[in-house]
Amino acid sequence: MKSEASFIPDGGVTSPKGFLAGAVKAGIKYADKRRLDLGILFSEAPCTAAAVFTTNLVKAAPVLLDQQRLKSGKARAVVMNSGYANACTGAQGMADAIEMTEMTARHTGVSTEDVLAASTGVIGPVFPMERIRTAIPKIKLTVEGGHDIERAIMTTDTVPKEAAVKVGDYTIGGISKGVGMLHPDMATLLCFLTTDANIEAGFLKQALRKAMDISFNMISVDGDGSTNDTVLIMANGMAGGKQITKSSKMADIFQDALNKICIYLAKENARDGEGATKLIEVTVSGAANLKDARLAARTIVGSSLVKTAVHGCDPNWGRVIAAAGRSGAMMEPDKVELEIGGVTLFKDGAPVPFEEKEVAKYLGGKEVSIALNLHLGRAKAMAWGCDLSAEYVKINAEYTT
Amino acid sequence: MKSEASFIPDGGVTSPKGFLAGAVKAGIKYADKRRLDLGILFSEAPCTAAAVFTTNLVKAAPVLLDQQRLKSGKARAVVMNSGYANACTGAQGMADAIEMTEMTARHTGVSTEDVLAASTGVIGPVFPMERIRTAIPKIKLTVEGGHDIERAIMTTDTVPKEAAVKVGDYTIGGISKGVGMLHPDMATLLCFLTTDANIEAGFLKQALRKAMDISFNMISVDGDGSTNDTVLIMANGMAGGKQITKSSKMADIFQDALNKICIYLAKENARDGEGATKLIEVTVSGAANLKDARLAARTIVGSSLVKTAVHGCDPNWGRVIAAAGRSGAMMEPDKVELEIGGVTLFKDGAPVPFEEKEVAKYLGGKEVSIALNLHLGRAKAMAWGCDLSAEYVKINAEYTT
Repeated sequence: MKSEASFIPDGGVTSPKGFLAGAVKAGIKYADKRRLDLGILFSEAPCTAAAVFTTNLVKAAPVLLDQQRLKSGKARAVVMNSGYANACTGAQGMADAIEMTEMTARHTGVSTEDVLAASTGVIGPVFPMERIRTAIPKIKLTVEGGHDIERAIMTTDTVPKEAAVKVGDYTIGGISKGVGMLHPDMATLLCFLTTDANIEAGFLKQALRKAMDISFNMISVDGDGSTNDTVLIMANGMAGGKQITKSSKMADIFQDALNKICIYLAKENARDGEGATKLIEVTVSGAANLKDARLAARTIVGSSLVKTAVHGCDPNWGRVIAAAGRSGAMMEPDKVELEIGGVTLFKDGAPVPFEEKEVAKYLGGKEVSIALNLHLGRAKAMAWGCDLSAEYVKINAEYTT
Repeated sequence: MKSEASFIPDGGVTSPKGFLAGAVKAGIKYADKRRLDLGILFSEAPCTAAAVFTTNLVKAAPVLLDQQRLKSGKARAVVMNSGYANACTGAQGMADAIEMTEMTARHTGVSTEDVLAASTGVIGPVFPMERIRTAIPKIKLTVEGGHDIERAIMTTDTVPKEAAVKVGDYTIGGISKGVGMLHPDMATLLCFLTTDANIEAGFLKQALRKAMDISFNMISVDGDGSTNDTVLIMANGMAGGKQITKSSKMADIFQDALNKICIYLAKENARDGEGATKLIEVTVSGAANLKDARLAARTIVGSSLVKTAVHGCDPNWGRVIAAAGRSGAMMEPDKVELEIGGVTLFKDGAPVPFEEKEVAKYLGGKEVSIALNLHLGRAKAMAWGCDLSAEYVKINAEYTT
């Protein structure tokens, strides 16, 4: 059996067997129905399911509802929308989230308890429920609809983020949206993963958490964690085969494949960060422990000054060292070594002469790699983010209006 | 004796008796000597002195030097510059910082041990020491020079930040510069306070820390803490009077006056934050404890999404609630109450209908007040910041080049 997961061309959330999806233009935010904004993801067979949600104390109604329903470890369908987040909406918001799942259950013929909800968009406004009521019964579920549902959850995203990987007899698919209010340890805004592998519920939950720690929890766009962040995985077992549990021989192969698709989708979110013109990849090695490596990598990739310097192709490397220094990670300035694009700029506590023009040219590319070695231990972590542009300000100064 | 401190018109760092200052155009960053960039602050009499420095593990050479010298609790002069930060400059940087203080000692006729140094500017480059060697002997020390030295430490600051308050028989003066790489709990970039009051060294240190906690530690411009942050106070006792100690009757009056000037200078730094068009004041009340109140206030004022919304005059209040929710402060969403400019937008866990146009108009002003009541306890804190504009990106994308 081939154990290396490989990407499927044009793959997405309906690539695994038995998953269907569809979306419509319900006019949730834009009454002129200019875009897809409401969709359903559906499995033809019962699924084990697990999710990771925002750590924000202010949680949107659909997050609170899903947390309750996922105690069963099962799900069959998710109704999702963009436009409004259904967060800070009080009792009315919860009633609306429940009603959406009830209507979806009737439309798809499954139990309401097996339907989850997810929303993204402006925090605060209550839903135009009459438009949602009219729209849900019009959603057609097909394999092709996988691409439509990704478009229905996009907000300030400029490109869809979809992928599927094949490993052995099964497939893992996924879609995700960002691309602002995006910060480590908050999962990301929305990500839905599907697989036709047969996965035991406890292992599914553990594998999802592990994958998050090296993917969505290692990206940052603007340091703001959302009220709606949700990463959900559903496994329907329709590829057949023995159930994979924590102690299965196949467990590592599934974990690797899941990591692969999660890192891919996380990086695509960072690359498409609001106003971004390039992807920044930060690798911190030689840290005393994994926590420090993660902390330093995420602090650097989240630093406004690092992000603006990269945007301006300005080899102002001192900002990277300064960000690491305030990260909370253990660090001895005299041991630190910094490389940008493979060029050493700082070593043993002192600057190393370098060709400014050469590094500035490198920073002008579409992917920028920053590598910091703390030379204190063996722990290593990677984080991804994007540059900070004037366009970010424009997008976020005019979002609700 | 009048116990309420009052501002002195056109006051500054040389308003207290016995303080002199001067600055020159040394050409540290710009060889064409287009601006003042090197100065000395000097006291005619010995001073007790105390300082608060950056908590960044990467500390500039002058910070490391000052920490060493201030163990004596004394100082007579400070040599300071803008252009380069003398941070991440290794052994050469420390040798340069020491040499600057030695030259200043010779020029002013005091002991080298009584001279401190402070630098601000680009991290990394080593000093053009030959230019500094030529320039130091040319610095003339006068009372009028107080305004020049403020200009010599400005970097991306657009306006000087100077003040002096009179209370009873003595005066407290101060200058400060920001206005990027500025974040709570890192002090600010540079601030020098002087007083002719007679203050015992231990009390001076304690009073400075208390004042910092409600002023410079409660402002944020971009979430990046610097390698050079320094707030220094020197007290020369030349106003006469009995020494003020922790247990003096006068201790509270001095503390109040010091708080007043520190809050003023801190707010001026926030108002002049890189690219800022307005000052944002966040008050969090009803917190379970002071730590939570501070945490929530600083997280809100530091949120990129709150800052961009205020910049765009967009009453997107959900971002304020979301920022508080991820701050780490204890919070029960159902109890939270939010006001912007005195208009209630959110109460008891649900939105309150409001006139969008009215709040948008308010957000168009030069000062924006956001008040969040957590309704959990009695602790309260205030924090100050600024909006995030496209100009911030422009300034920081092109800083070193």
